[in-house]
Amino acid sequence: MSLSFHIDSRDGSARTGKLITPHGEVETPVFMPVGTLASVKGTSNETLEQLNAQIILANTYHLYLRPGTEQVRKLGGLHRFMSWERALLTDSGGFQVFSLNDLRKVNEEGVSFRSHLDGASLFLSPESATEAQIALGADVIMAFDECTEYPADADRARRSMEMTLRWAKRSKEHFEAHKNEVPWRQEAGSRTQDAGGTSRLPPPASRTQALFGIVQGGMHPELRKESAERTVEIGFDGYAIGGLSVGEPRAATREMIEATLPHLPADRPRYVMGVGYPEEIVEYAAMGVDMMDCVLPTRAARHGLLFTSEGRVNIKNAAYAADQGPIDPNCSCAVCGRYTRAYLRHLYSTGEMLGQILNTIHNLAHYLDTMRRVRDAIRCGNLQAFVSGFRARLQLTPKASS
Amino acid sequence: MSLSFHIDSRDGSARTGKLITPHGEVETPVFMPVGTLASVKGTSNETLEQLNAQIILANTYHLYLRPGTEQVRKLGGLHRFMSWERALLTDSGGFQVFSLNDLRKVNEEGVSFRSHLDGASLFLSPESATEAQIALGADVIMAFDECTEYPADADRARRSMEMTLRWAKRSKEHFEAHKNEVPWRQEAGSRTQDAGGTSRLPPPASRTQALFGIVQGGMHPELRKESAERTVEIGFDGYAIGGLSVGEPRAATREMIEATLPHLPADRPRYVMGVGYPEEIVEYAAMGVDMMDCVLPTRAARHGLLFTSEGRVNIKNAAYAADQGPIDPNCSCAVCGRYTRAYLRHLYSTGEMLGQILNTIHNLAHYLDTMRRVRDAIRCGNLQAFVSGFRARLQLTPKASS
Repeated sequence: MSLSFHIDSRDGSARTGKLITPHGEVETPVFMPVGTLASVKGTSNETLEQLNAQIILANTYHLYLRPGTEQVRKLGGLHRFMSWERALLTDSGGFQVFSLNDLRKVNEEGVSFRSHLDGASLFLSPESATEAQIALGADVIMAFDECTEYPADADRARRSMEMTLRWAKRSKEHFEAHKNEVPWRQEAGSRTQDAGGTSRLPPPASRTQALFGIVQGGMHPELRKESAERTVEIGFDGYAIGGLSVGEPRAATREMIEATLPHLPADRPRYVMGVGYPEEIVEYAAMGVDMMDCVLPTRAARHGLLFTSEGRVNIKNAAYAADQGPIDPNCSCAVCGRYTRAYLRHLYSTGEMLGQILNTIHNLAHYLDTMRRVRDAIRCGNLQAFVSGFRARLQLTPKASS
Repeated sequence: MSLSFHIDSRDGSARTGKLITPHGEVETPVFMPVGTLASVKGTSNETLEQLNAQIILANTYHLYLRPGTEQVRKLGGLHRFMSWERALLTDSGGFQVFSLNDLRKVNEEGVSFRSHLDGASLFLSPESATEAQIALGADVIMAFDECTEYPADADRARRSMEMTLRWAKRSKEHFEAHKNEVPWRQEAGSRTQDAGGTSRLPPPASRTQALFGIVQGGMHPELRKESAERTVEIGFDGYAIGGLSVGEPRAATREMIEATLPHLPADRPRYVMGVGYPEEIVEYAAMGVDMMDCVLPTRAARHGLLFTSEGRVNIKNAAYAADQGPIDPNCSCAVCGRYTRAYLRHLYSTGEMLGQILNTIHNLAHYLDTMRRVRDAIRCGNLQAFVSGFRARLQLTPKASS
C-alpha cells in the first residue's frame, strides 16, 4: 500500500488515526474543505494553512474542463499548480457527471456528456478518469463510479452497483499500469519550499498516489453490504461510501453508512463523500468514519449562513445590524476575534467581497475545530459526552436532526 | 491644529514627512487604498496591516446610504465598526454626488440627489456632510465641495469655485462647533486592543479630527491659484486638490497640480484626490504631493489588470496559461512569492474569487512598495534617478505617459 494509515486511539466505534501521504500527515477523523477548481472558494492557501487544514479536495470534472488535466500535468501537477504542498484528494468526476442529468449518457464503456460551460461533447471512462487523476497527482484519488440516482428501486440500484464494481476493477487496472506517471515522481531529488519557508524533500520516488474504491448500492442495505464486500475483494488503499447526499432523508444517509461500515476493513481509511452539516460530521465520526468532505461550509458562507456552537446564524438578518458581538462567542477563529456581527451583516448586505471571505474563514474554522474536538474527545475516551454536549448546544433533538 | 505634520527630508520639490493622527502615524508621501463601504474591496484588514498600509479611505456618500452614518456613530465610529485601528480619511461625499449626474440638483444650500440604490430623495450640505463625517470619526475629514465638471469654461469654473469657497467656510464653521462630538472622544480612558494584540490607549480626549480644505477651479491655472489662496485664508489642517481625474488629459492634471502647489503652505499636508497610475503617483510625489488615493489598484485587480515594475500585465491573456513565473519578478509580495501567472490566469478565467483576492494583494503591494521606495529615494537625495529608472523600466517616454 502506498498510503499508510495508523489508528492511534478508539472510543466506541470511533477512532483517531494518521493518514500518511506523500505530501504530509493528516489527522483523522478529518473534514476536507472542497477546492472545486483548485481553490477553496473565498479563501487562500495561507488561510487554509493558518486554519491547519491538512488535506483539501479538488474536482477532476471541473479541472478536466479548465484548465485541462494534461495542462496541469505539464505544469508539474496540482500541488505545484496551486502552490499547495500539503495533501490533496481528487474525486473521479463520477459525481459531477451524475449531476449533469440531461447532458449525460451512460453505457458500459463510460459516460458521454456535454460540458456545462460550452456544450462540448466529452467522454469519461474508468481509464480516462484515472488518467486525469494521475495527471493531477493528488495524494488520494478515487475510482470512477456511477453515482446511483435517488430514488432507485432494488433492480436499478443493483445494475448500477454491478457496473460500478466493473468500473472499479478497470480503474484499478489502469492505475496499477500507470501509477508511476504521477507528475511529482519526476521531481524526486529536487527541493521544494513549503509555506512556512522551510525547505523539505519532495515525496520519495518510491511513493505513488493511493486509489480508493467507492461503495454504491442506493438506499438498499443488502446492496450496500454486497457492494462493500466485493469492492474490498478488488482491493483498494481506502474505501469511500458514495451515492449519499443525493436527496435522501438524513435518516437514510445514516442507515446506509451503518449498513456499510462493518463490511469495510477496520485498518483502512473510511470516507463518506459529500457530507454534511456540523452535527452530521460529528455523528458520522462517532460511527467510525475517518474522512468527510462537503461544499457546505464554504457555499453557506457565501450565502451568509454561519455555523456556530449555538446553532446557525443568518448574517443578513436585520437583527444583527447593531450587534456588536462576534459570530460565535465560543469560537477562537480570527474573524470572531476581530469583527462584529454588525460589520459582517453590513458587508453581506452591501455585497462586499470581504463578507464572503470572512464568513468562509469562520465556517471552515468551525468545521475544522469541531473535528479537532472530536479527535480530542476520542483520545480522552469521552466522545459520547462530547456528542451529547455538542447536540445540546445546538438545541437539536434526535428528531430535529433527522 | 489637531493634526501634526513634520517634514523630515527634502529632495527638490519632494519631501518626506510624518502625519501624526489620533490613530497612529502615517509616513508621507503616502498612497491611500480606498475602502468605499468600510472595506478595501477584495482584502481584509489583516492583509492591509501586513502590507503596512498606515491609512485608508472610506466614502461618506456610500456609508451615508448604508449602513447610515448615524448607525456607525452608535456603533462607536468607523474605526471600531470596521475594526481598523490605524488612521482613516473620509471624503465629504462631494465627488460621489457629482458622479450622480442626472440624479442631482445643486443650489447654494447644498445638493439634492437621489440614492443610486433605491432612488430615495436625499440632501447633503456642508453642514450635513461634515456632521456625517464627524459621526464616522475618520482622523482626516474633507470640506464639502462642488467637484467642477469637465470641461467647464472660465465663467462656470469661477462660479463653481466661489461656491466651493463659501461651502468650505460653512464646513469649517460646522466642524469647529461640533468637533467634540466625534465618537472616539467618548472612549478616552478605556483601553482598546490593536491588531497585534497589544493594548494601547485610545486617542487622548484632547485630540479631534482634522479638516482639510479642497482647491477647485477647473482646468484654469489662475482659478486654481486663487482657489488655493482663498482656501488657505479660511485655514485648514491640510489642503487637497480636487476636481481632477474627471476626464481631462493627464497633462492637464499635472498642469493643475503644478499651478496649485506653490500656493499651498509648505508646512501642511498636500493631498491630490483620486490619482492615479503608478507612474503618476511617483511623478506627483516628486512634485511635492504628500497624499494620494485611488480605486485603481483594487478595481484594476478585480478586472485582471496587474501593475508590475515592468509594466502592466493583463492576467486573462492566454499567453500566461503556462507561465510559471510570478506576476512581477521584482516584487516581494506574498502573491509573487508563491503563485504563478498560470495559476492566477486560471483563477481569473474561471471566475474564482481567489483570483480577485490575490490580484488585489499584489496591486496594493505594488502601490505601497512604490511609495516606500519613493520615500527612501527622497531621504537618500536620489529621487530624480529613481523616477528615471522607474519610468525606464515601464518603457514609458514622457509622450507615452501624457
